[in-house]
Parts: sequence; C-alpha cells; structure tokens
Amino acid sequence: MKGRRAVVLVSGGLDSATTLSIARHSDFSCYALSVEYGQRHNIELEAAKRVVNSIGVEEHQIVSIDLAAFGGSALTDVGIEVPQTRTSGIPITYVPARNTVFLALALAWAEVLKTRHVFIGVNAVDYSGYPDCRREFIDAFTALANLGTRAGDQGERFEIHAPLIELHKSDIIRLGLSLGVDYATTISCYQPDSDGRACGGCDSCEIRRAGFETAGAPDPTVYR
Amino acid sequence: MKGRRAVVLVSGGLDSATTLSIARHSDFSCYALSVEYGQRHNIELEAAKRVVNSIGVEEHQIVSIDLAAFGGSALTDVGIEVPQTRTSGIPITYVPARNTVFLALALAWAEVLKTRHVFIGVNAVDYSGYPDCRREFIDAFTALANLGTRAGDQGERFEIHAPLIELHKSDIIRLGLSLGVDYATTISCYQPDSDGRACGGCDSCEIRRAGFETAGAPDPTVYR
Repeated sequence: MKGRRAVVLVSGGLDSATTLSIARHSDFSCYALSVEYGQRHNIELEAAKRVVNSIGVEEHQIVSIDLAAFGGSALTDVGIEVPQTRTSGIPITYVPARNTVFLALALAWAEVLKTRHVFIGVNAVDYSGYPDCRREFIDAFTALANLGTRAGDQGERFEIHAPLIELHKSDIIRLGLSLGVDYATTISCYQPDSDGRACGGCDSCEIRRAGFETAGAPDPTVYR
Repeated sequence: MKGRRAVVLVSGGLDSATTLSIARHSDFSCYALSVEYGQRHNIELEAAKRVVNSIGVEEHQIVSIDLAAFGGSALTDVGIEVPQTRTSGIPITYVPARNTVFLALALAWAEVLKTRHVFIGVNAVDYSGYPDCRREFIDAFTALANLGTRAGDQGERFEIHAPLIELHKSDIIRLGLSLGVDYATTISCYQPDSDGRACGGCDSCEIRRAGFETAGAPDPTVYR
C-alpha cells in the first residue's frame, strides 16, 4: 500500500503512459482519469485501458463529456479533415480548452480523494503548438486550483505535476523505456483505423516516429 | 440580430436567470450552457429550459458529465444527506471544482463561437461559502483562459463577467425584477420533490426566501 495518492490523466498516448509510469515510480498510488470527449479516435480509450492495466493503478475512471457538441476541431468534428502535413501556428487538431477541461475534472477527483497531486503529460518541446501545453498555463491552473477548491481554502497547496514539459520526445521515450513502459500499448495517431493502426502521416505520427528514431529505440507502432 | 456573442452558464437558479437577463439587456446574443453533472436535483435542468425559453437565447446546449462518479458531495452523492441547517465553513453541498469545470466548458464553447465573453452568476455575498464563488477565483480563471486558448494566444483578452458577484440576494432579485425576470421559472432548492416543489429548509431555500423578503417582493417559490 503506497502512501500518497495522485490523479493521473491518461489518454492512451505515449506521453501520458510515461507520465503514469513516472508517478508510479515516485511512489504515488495512482488514480487514472481518462476523458471521452467525443473524439473521432475513440480507439484512444482502448489504449488508455491497456496502458493502465500494463502499468497498474488503484482505480481507472473514464468520464464522458460531449465536447463535440461545440464543434470547432478536426479531432471532434467529422466535418473537418485531419491535415497530413505540419502547419505553422495552432493547428486545426487543437480541441478548444481541452487541457483546461481535463485538469478541472482531475482537480474535482483529487479533491474527493483528498490529495493535492495531479499529473498531466503535457509537453512544450516536441508538440503540436497547442497553447495549453506550456509552463505558464500549468502555473495559471495551479493558482486557480488553490483559489477554487475547499483544500486550497484550507491552506493546502495543489501541485500540478508536468514531468515531461521540457523534454524532447526522444528523451521521453528513453525515460519511459528505462522505467519499463511498453509503448506497444499506446497510440498517438490522430486518425487510427478501426484496428488501431496508425496513419503514419499526421502530425502526431510524425512526431512519434521521429522520437523513436532519435532515441535509437525500435518503434512498436503498427502502421496501416 | 445582435452583435456580440456571449456564453452564459444557466443552472435554472435565481442567480443565473438574472445573469442571463443582464447579458441579454447588455445587447449580447446569448448562448446558454447548462451542465448535467449527476446532480440529485436534476429537476434543475427543467428549470434551466424554462428560464432560457422565458428570456430568449440563440442556442441552448446541455452538456453531461458524470461528476457523481467521483462522489464527495451531498449534491451528487446519494449517500450523503443534504443538511437542513446552515453550517459554518464550506458545506457538504459543495461540489468539488464545480465552477472550474463549468467555466472550462464555457470557455471551450466560447472559443468555437469566436467570442471572448462568458457570463457566470456567482455571488460572494449571500452565498453558501463555496470557494469558487469569489472575485479572486474569477480573476485566476481569466488569467488561465488567456494562456490556455488559441484566442488568448492571438492576443484576445477573455472576459469572465460575474455581474452579481458583489450583490446581496435582495439586490439581485430587485435587479432581475426590473429587467422582467420571471422567478417562477427558477428553482433554488437543493432537494426539490419530483414536482419541483422546494423543501424550504435547506441553505439555498433559506437564502432565497430571505432575499425575497428583504427585497419586499412576492416569493413565487412553491414549497411542499
């Protein structure tokens, strides 16, 4: 029985699997939270279950929200196509306020679990240019958490752990492999087929493939 | 056709009905957002529909999230009883991180609607002592919104309007009546019966009843 509890956001991707493994190896008892937000690639949630089973957690909650009702992203709106080349600026695969929503849910669960620790696998280096993956965003959310909760009100300080935020993708992969993460359980592609095979062409596939190459590690991704 | 758009959080209660009316009278075209969060008093959502129909909006979205999966509040957890007397400190009816979750969802929709205006009916005077109803919380969320969104990234400044935050309940009621709000459409009780009749004994009923009394206005609430 481990001492400290942590809520860990687990998407089924490479980064959040590594983050979960880091939390486990830092002696947290982990409560994995996955969010079903109307994403086109619902096969992500199957990956999240594999990741959680492979690494081991106390509990895994999957919370559904229909962000697709708002539209506006290639990841939730079937009317918008996922681009096959990298673009400059914030891409169309950006889901509005996604990490704000995810962290808010993680915070709610953390309060109930009476812990002040939340882990999120955001990364500001080899990323797609989303504004909610940066250190300033995490710091602003921490300030909010301390003002908007019962625990914060009683003098507890929340910690939003973002252990990957300044790492290159290849370093994330090396770190995860050293901790025993089985990356075959994860999926990064924005538009996998129904068997979970990656397209190999989207932004996320490209960043992942380059990461394994630079890390000098075999890429377990199954491409179609 | 009105010019500026605003997302307005509408719960079905007295405060959010007044807030919606203020937004309408400030020449915003209003997009009402209600959240079904596993509350015991789901009859709130019926009130939200009545309020929205009575005041008039461009669109009304009801987003479901199962906050009850986390437990921890008398408003979502059927194992916890709603107290019939006011308590000091943060009460058991506090739903963990509720306004953080609600504002995150409102922000997501605001981004898609390409507006930077969000209205929320929080109130820091005659309230139940929830930490996420204070000015500092709203300011912290505004800072977060500007860091965690595409619009903020491009130099837009979000405004989280909380027009009731410093008003007494009786002033809110007077203001709403002057704008033509029909408070018979609203419900405040934490545990209404299946016909929507108020208990008259919970915190929220008590604050509402005192508000009408002080305002010298007839209370349209139907008590059981």
